[in-house]
Amino acid sequence: MKAIILFGHGARDARWREPFDRLAALWKAQHPQVLVQLAFLEMMEPSLSSAIGDLASQGVHQITVVPVFFGQGGHLRNDFPILLEECRTQYPQIQLSTTLAVGENDAVLQAIVDFAAKAL
Amino acid sequence: MKAIILFGHGARDARWREPFDRLAALWKAQHPQVLVQLAFLEMMEPSLSSAIGDLASQGVHQITVVPVFFGQGGHLRNDFPILLEECRTQYPQIQLSTTLAVGENDAVLQAIVDFAAKAL
Repeated sequence: MKAIILFGHGARDARWREPFDRLAALWKAQHPQVLVQLAFLEMMEPSLSSAIGDLASQGVHQITVVPVFFGQGGHLRNDFPILLEECRTQYPQIQLSTTLAVGENDAVLQAIVDFAAKAL
Repeated sequence: MKAIILFGHGARDARWREPFDRLAALWKAQHPQVLVQLAFLEMMEPSLSSAIGDLASQGVHQITVVPVFFGQGGHLRNDFPILLEECRTQYPQIQLSTTLAVGENDAVLQAIVDFAAKAL
């Protein structure tokens, strides 16, 4: 069974995660055959490791981690690979892959430009 | 003259801003009649106040600030309104308005879901 993890930074204010919950809800409605979990780098639960453990216990063997970040800065270039290696060691039975940050995707950037244009 | 400011968090790693530069380039190509500037909350230049000052000196009198953030957490709910009030005091001749965070927009979220689906 396959799954994706939408991986965000996390924040102190619980309301910060609302778009992440909406992303997961959209995914569930549109891609019900692939499980989805949120995970956060800091300040919010679950951690990446805990989200992978949860999916593993549901029989998932293949997980794509999607960094829901705009830019590929220190968090994604330095912290994230280390975290991912730890998770690979912890869950050797899971095939873990990752994508670029969503902010690197042209269609995502275009949607932001269109949103800004409509707001004028 | 009108302008938009794409307002991001900022990060230590200079490469973090690449998607913001691409956003500004897309905007310039598609909406050349409306000036665009980047601005950052912390760790990157220019600040919001400095970006507004730069646009004001180019004859801009109306600016829409678009928070390029996923969630509306403490930065947008607490820091941003204070910053905006300071800018309004500093530049009373500029009509400043803002939008919701881009992560609140359905089309932006859908573009992220589509990106994740293609990555599977």
